[in-house]
Amino acid sequence: MARIGVDLGGTKIYGVVVDGVEVLATAKRKTPRKASPDEVIHRIVQVVDDLGGVEGIESIGVGAPGPVDARGTVLVAPNLTGWDGPVPLAALLAQSLHRPVTVENDVSAATFAEHRAGAARGVADVLGVWVGTGVGGGLVIGGHLVRGQRGGAAEIGHMAVRPGGRRCGCGGSGHLEAYAGRAGMEAEARRRQAAGEPTQLVEEVGDRRITSRVWADALAAGDVVATEIVAEGGEMLAVALASAAALVDMTAVVIGGGLAERLGDPWREEVARRLGELSFGPPPSLAAAALGDPGGALGAALLAG
Amino acid sequence: MARIGVDLGGTKIYGVVVDGVEVLATAKRKTPRKASPDEVIHRIVQVVDDLGGVEGIESIGVGAPGPVDARGTVLVAPNLTGWDGPVPLAALLAQSLHRPVTVENDVSAATFAEHRAGAARGVADVLGVWVGTGVGGGLVIGGHLVRGQRGGAAEIGHMAVRPGGRRCGCGGSGHLEAYAGRAGMEAEARRRQAAGEPTQLVEEVGDRRITSRVWADALAAGDVVATEIVAEGGEMLAVALASAAALVDMTAVVIGGGLAERLGDPWREEVARRLGELSFGPPPSLAAAALGDPGGALGAALLAG
Repeated sequence: MARIGVDLGGTKIYGVVVDGVEVLATAKRKTPRKASPDEVIHRIVQVVDDLGGVEGIESIGVGAPGPVDARGTVLVAPNLTGWDGPVPLAALLAQSLHRPVTVENDVSAATFAEHRAGAARGVADVLGVWVGTGVGGGLVIGGHLVRGQRGGAAEIGHMAVRPGGRRCGCGGSGHLEAYAGRAGMEAEARRRQAAGEPTQLVEEVGDRRITSRVWADALAAGDVVATEIVAEGGEMLAVALASAAALVDMTAVVIGGGLAERLGDPWREEVARRLGELSFGPPPSLAAAALGDPGGALGAALLAG
Repeated sequence: MARIGVDLGGTKIYGVVVDGVEVLATAKRKTPRKASPDEVIHRIVQVVDDLGGVEGIESIGVGAPGPVDARGTVLVAPNLTGWDGPVPLAALLAQSLHRPVTVENDVSAATFAEHRAGAARGVADVLGVWVGTGVGGGLVIGGHLVRGQRGGAAEIGHMAVRPGGRRCGCGGSGHLEAYAGRAGMEAEARRRQAAGEPTQLVEEVGDRRITSRVWADALAAGDVVATEIVAEGGEMLAVALASAAALVDMTAVVIGGGLAERLGDPWREEVARRLGELSFGPPPSLAAAALGDPGGALGAALLAG
């Protein structure tokens, strides 16, 4: 029997109908800006209707951009404006859709899809790392998704890679995300520009966001500040992955996310090289996420009850 | 039906008969020095005989001081002189004892016992950290021991806490064990003494080992070098635990091992305080191992098939 999977992102809501690991249909709508939970739920229901509705659908899985507890309540979702407190998304959607609904963290869902049908198919222990504005993670051990009792597992972006180092968005210091996430890297580029190290990263965008494309362009042009910041981020990512490998002995790492995609194979291969040098045991393989846009929604469907 | 558990250590072999989590009998013999695997196996069989033999015993579990693969082969065991290559301990013992034998890493076994019957009883996600000559770990997630496909899970001692930092016994750099294990701390004390920072740690023992007792005495006497090295080791332990908590969201950490016992509650409470400051989510609790000497053997029995 078919299932529906939904990837609820900060900019778009992506839905799939799946049978096993096969994607039968897809649909996509924009996430409402500055929307209440009710408006987002209404938009998800629209995507489900676009997919043909719930007739013949056994259950629905949703990937949400934040930590999720065992009941499917999204605890916080910084990328969804208007979500100021916990939202019992699974319960609310089940009411609207009259089907069992399971909600998981979006990167956990995408990692699970890569484990079942993507770059890490057939591997029992997999760490997923999604490098974008922040650095998110997903962890599969023995074929099972690790959630943590409080929904907080796989927060690789908040592993401490340089004690006392750069301030993280969360308030901590020396966390991976401050070195390898787009927002942390942008803050560092602006600090350097202000300190008298000119960089085309800032000169090109002014007050606008330094997008992943701008980073890739600056690297291609040999911009020194961009090159150093990206190299340091890759080094810190390798350190975190080596520590994670020491702790859970996973054999495969899958890397996805907008910035990782833009930096591409040479960057990933450099991270893999450093991971090989830093690893205590045999280093895990390091592959690019293979499923693309439908991955998160497929994973959510696979995790649905 | 009863089981036998055996903790095979570098200095002693500790055996227990258990029914559920209840220890019915214990026995102990010295580990043969510079002994071949055959001699060690013979000594384990003697301990089993001391416990009354295998009559009425369903199965036997052994905790071994090294990584162990899924078939119960001990891959390396630096603390057992004469074990130069992998030893198929489970298969060899099953032949001698005519019972099913399961072999696990010793710290994994001790951690599992604390999860089932000790300081972390009733907690599903537990990290065990054993601080002695080195720093070993055990990891329980969702009530199941995490082994890793290659038997290498929970090597918290080889998490990178200071990239490019102190050389580790394994050849890596900046690993926790180089800061928080007795051997790494001793190497640092000797470096400082040689560099003109006198410390009673070295003055008291000369060329002999700086034991855990000597560390505790130097701390009590206010020795500056000892105080700084212990504080830095505790700080690095807190960093590793915060990173581990970010990755697996465990709710409880259990600390055991000779050095941790000797440094006692004030040291553990200081590590807990720093862990609280460094944690991304709610910090895990930090408890002293409660089962003492029989813990490892009990855990091995609980993990026996």
